[in-house]
Amino acid sequence: METIVFAGLGAMGWPMASNLREGGFEVLPYDVDAGRVEVFYRDGDVSLNEDALTHTVRRLGEADALLIMVVNADQVRQLLFDQGMAEALKPGACIIQMSTIAPGDAAAIHADLKTLRTDLHYVDAPVSGGVVGARAGSLTIMSAGEPEALAACQRAFEVLGRDLFHAGDRVGQGSAFKAVNQLLCGVHIAVAAEALALAEKNSLDLDVMVRMLGGSAASSWMINDRGPRMILPPGEVTSAVDIFCKDLGIVCEAARQSRAYTPLAQSAYQLFVASSERGEGRLDDSQVIRTYQLLNGQLLNEQDSDATAQAGEGDA
Amino acid sequence: METIVFAGLGAMGWPMASNLREGGFEVLPYDVDAGRVEVFYRDGDVSLNEDALTHTVRRLGEADALLIMVVNADQVRQLLFDQGMAEALKPGACIIQMSTIAPGDAAAIHADLKTLRTDLHYVDAPVSGGVVGARAGSLTIMSAGEPEALAACQRAFEVLGRDLFHAGDRVGQGSAFKAVNQLLCGVHIAVAAEALALAEKNSLDLDVMVRMLGGSAASSWMINDRGPRMILPPGEVTSAVDIFCKDLGIVCEAARQSRAYTPLAQSAYQLFVASSERGEGRLDDSQVIRTYQLLNGQLLNEQDSDATAQAGEGDA
Repeated sequence: METIVFAGLGAMGWPMASNLREGGFEVLPYDVDAGRVEVFYRDGDVSLNEDALTHTVRRLGEADALLIMVVNADQVRQLLFDQGMAEALKPGACIIQMSTIAPGDAAAIHADLKTLRTDLHYVDAPVSGGVVGARAGSLTIMSAGEPEALAACQRAFEVLGRDLFHAGDRVGQGSAFKAVNQLLCGVHIAVAAEALALAEKNSLDLDVMVRMLGGSAASSWMINDRGPRMILPPGEVTSAVDIFCKDLGIVCEAARQSRAYTPLAQSAYQLFVASSERGEGRLDDSQVIRTYQLLNGQLLNEQDSDATAQAGEGDA
Repeated sequence: METIVFAGLGAMGWPMASNLREGGFEVLPYDVDAGRVEVFYRDGDVSLNEDALTHTVRRLGEADALLIMVVNADQVRQLLFDQGMAEALKPGACIIQMSTIAPGDAAAIHADLKTLRTDLHYVDAPVSGGVVGARAGSLTIMSAGEPEALAACQRAFEVLGRDLFHAGDRVGQGSAFKAVNQLLCGVHIAVAAEALALAEKNSLDLDVMVRMLGGSAASSWMINDRGPRMILPPGEVTSAVDIFCKDLGIVCEAARQSRAYTPLAQSAYQLFVASSERGEGRLDDSQVIRTYQLLNGQLLNEQDSDATAQAGEGDA
């Protein structure tokens, strides 16, 4: 694998594509935003005698792999089928799908690809570690697919990630790994909020509480990371409430597709959605505690102010 | 504080009382099982010229403190009020209540004590760390009460525990600390089971899954401790399902008493209760995963065998 078309130059995709280029791969960038494609070529000191996007599209048939890092399954389908990328690839090329999508969607996309043509490889390889991990090349990669296709991806994965896990041989199993991981991450944030809101309702010292919980059998990576921000007013955003609306939405979809009982994930999902629907989707995800505080009657003054403000508007 | 009546020589109480005696306190043991009281005196090379239980009861008025380590709030009430211990203590003595009970029960017991007499101190100081921590003198102690009473308990707490947290000045706040801690512990076990059952439903490699989760942002103390046992058939019991039926029951009671929204704790509680009600209360608490497997249709063969066995009985 030497030449990789990298589709999706977003917050995750851009640093991943840059790392691959620095790691010795020829990277042909692709994005709905043509400006980003142009800047990516320029940053790599690649001089073109044609439009940047046209250059990538014209060379699709030369690529050994198409790496996809977009927002959801619909965008993956648009790239592969509506925009004709699957048809343009050369025989034996490998599609490396790294976006977070539901396992059933990964399997369905793979099945649709098989009806279109049978001479492409497909690797299902979502990641965790966020933008920090994407930049540092320290992502966790959970990959599934045929052994020979996975072997062909190995060097690229070593550039992008630090912890590489073999999730299985079937497309969808990588995405299922990611769903299981996100189930725990999302519920751990929600339950940390539930615990600290209960502590607040009992007038406990929240600083002492967070310190105690972080060092006991009650600890989690999330309570150590998010706990200190939960007991402060909304501030710095490291990961937004809306990210977990999306990720726990995929977890719930994965549970529905595989018909698995997931009461805690469903509850946690609804808490994040409730925060988002109140207009707090862009706050740091630690602020899902505000949904608990609202239901516990602890945001009453704030609500009164809002109500007063609205009443004032109504009068005007 | 030199002489302590220690009430409740159970799995936790016995090693705690032993540690206090080894730590230089005179310990007067008390238990509903008179035989245990006798053995405790004998183990300490204390020779008595009267019945062991009678000896403790006769000397109640000499004690500087009454430490209580029993199963629930009813037993605390029986000791203090029905069996007359509160009346027998000398003025200025301190009641150190370390059993796990709901915060509202701790406050109510304290209030009832105040109507009986006002010359006793009361410290609300539950522990975590289990039998292992009790034996090692490494318990976490979450104490609440008047500062002078807490100061008087300091040396005893240092013998019993390693991490000492000041939960507050009001009786009930120690118990609330413990409830918040147990909320996280119980939900973390249940959600680990939910995640691994989802993984199993998706035919993922569970060994790889547990290894990945333990080192990622999805990790918790509980998934590292219980996860490996969840993916094995029922075996060694380190803490039983029924313990979390009790502890999450107290969490739910604490939430009800303080009117706090706790959907995740309520769900987790019901999962442990469902395991217990199916006759699996004495299994290791990691086996709460079996309730998920049952609802996911993954214990079908087992259920079929049971059904077949029952049908066979019916025919006979």
